Amino acid sequence: MTRESNRHDVRIEHAADRLLAAIDRCRAPVCVGLDPVLDRMPRDLRVATHSGSPIAQQLGSFCCAIIDAVHDIVPCVKPQSACFERYRDAGLEALQQTIEHARRRGMQVILDAKRGDIGVSAEHYAAAAFDKSAAIFSAPDWITINSYLGEDGVRPFLRRSHGAFALVRTSNSGGAAIQSLALSDGRTVAEAVAQIIASIGDEHLGERGYSSLGAVVGATKRSEAARLRELMPRQIFLVPGFGAQGAGVDDVLPCFNPDGTGAIITASRSIIYAFKPDDPDWTSSVRRAAEAFADEIGRAVGIR
Amino acid sequence: MTRESNRHDVRIEHAADRLLAAIDRCRAPVCVGLDPVLDRMPRDLRVATHSGSPIAQQLGSFCCAIIDAVHDIVPCVKPQSACFERYRDAGLEALQQTIEHARRRGMQVILDAKRGDIGVSAEHYAAAAFDKSAAIFSAPDWITINSYLGEDGVRPFLRRSHGAFALVRTSNSGGAAIQSLALSDGRTVAEAVAQIIASIGDEHLGERGYSSLGAVVGATKRSEAARLRELMPRQIFLVPGFGAQGAGVDDVLPCFNPDGTGAIITASRSIIYAFKPDDPDWTSSVRRAAEAFADEIGRAVGIR
Repeated sequence: MTRESNRHDVRIEHAADRLLAAIDRCRAPVCVGLDPVLDRMPRDLRVATHSGSPIAQQLGSFCCAIIDAVHDIVPCVKPQSACFERYRDAGLEALQQTIEHARRRGMQVILDAKRGDIGVSAEHYAAAAFDKSAAIFSAPDWITINSYLGEDGVRPFLRRSHGAFALVRTSNSGGAAIQSLALSDGRTVAEAVAQIIASIGDEHLGERGYSSLGAVVGATKRSEAARLRELMPRQIFLVPGFGAQGAGVDDVLPCFNPDGTGAIITASRSIIYAFKPDDPDWTSSVRRAAEAFADEIGRAVGIR
Repeated sequence: MTRESNRHDVRIEHAADRLLAAIDRCRAPVCVGLDPVLDRMPRDLRVATHSGSPIAQQLGSFCCAIIDAVHDIVPCVKPQSACFERYRDAGLEALQQTIEHARRRGMQVILDAKRGDIGVSAEHYAAAAFDKSAAIFSAPDWITINSYLGEDGVRPFLRRSHGAFALVRTSNSGGAAIQSLALSDGRTVAEAVAQIIASIGDEHLGERGYSSLGAVVGATKRSEAARLRELMPRQIFLVPGFGAQGAGVDDVLPCFNPDGTGAIITASRSIIYAFKPDDPDWTSSVRRAAEAFADEIGRAVGIR
């Protein structure tokens, strides 16, 4: 558990190649979402509110402990930006600490920020995520972005060395009300978005044929995922909805290409809160949950 | 110009009533967008990069000077969050300074952050925007949000005392590729989103009949705006696209209800950069541009 992961991943320039290499290393196309919520912290991390910056301390300590527990099992973590931004400076400090720690542990980092704007504003968001203008800043490898504004809301986030997952079909109950609407040409809204993403993404392919523009495709209906897979053969799918949100292995399999590559399944609460609040060895519980998750998905796609 | 604006606005609890009162006070349904970009700063604000936190200093000084120049002409400012977030802590400090200064000057503040997530994450974003958990924090009156995730991406942002403008039809060139797609039932995607927003928004009406859930409706085609106006009679429309983005008075008029209320027209670059870089009296140029903007729109809707 204490072995440092192969650092050579950081020398792979293209974001998709780097993510695929990390998946190969762990033999598990999975991601653990870091959605830290103060009142679900394990008891031994709860610090008194009079000790400096307790929020940053709790959020950061919790996320770093999770990273230590899973870094050799899981290739990738996905910090939820909102959970950190809520606490302003202290939260951003904890987010920074989390990203840096994951990088040191050899993990890929997807910042779940769902940014979406156009033109100069979108360029600013991309710069905020990826540019190392602040000396201490450790950039995430990927960011999630919103597609509703169209191509000029996506293009400013495109890089070779950093990736963006564009929201195509989300797994929340309200997502279908817009994303699954039927168009007059027979497509759904999500399928129309998928075609835009596939077209833009072709400009940024890595050596293994995948783009640094990926897609968020929730584990909703199997047929829907299969159709989106056809429309976006070169997008890595970031797949939420597994575990606490109710989807199982059968639901997520259509998100992969036939060779078992091309998707990364995320679970958050079912892993990071896989303990009772007063569990003194809570990180072992988290590790066991991550191992079971990685094993289940790894076997399902035939890489274990 | 130095008179402090009526502070009584802050005692109006409902966000829509407060915004409408501010519009009445200025007799101009307009908003100035604050999109500060370092290399467009007036020369007298450019500070040496070795003096403390020069970025925060420049962004904050620029925005506060604009606020001082327009506060009695224009009811509302719209800081673009990306422009500040780009500079992390220093940028957030400048954003905070800008919001506080606008509030002191009696202006309404719309934070253009285009946040969009669901469930707990959306609640965190709403809390980050509106909750006064940090003692020094001055909350914006409104925030812009993204609608692509559907109802459960909108509802967590609903308040009486604070408002949210949901993106329905954006004015960027790529927006039409998704938002104007024709559905099988004859509506467009934007119209379907409009109906969702209208339905949710009815739960939060102020005394003047408008909701604290508004809509971003860009000045694109007149017929499109008119149809969205019909579908969302109780939403205040936040209308980008005027000025630098090419729309004129005739394009934005269909965004108002027949009584001349219900929309607020925004202009950013055409106002805040209405000067030459070495203009020693650049704030007077900004003030003149704001006055002409307020006058043009105020007359067009018959409140001047």
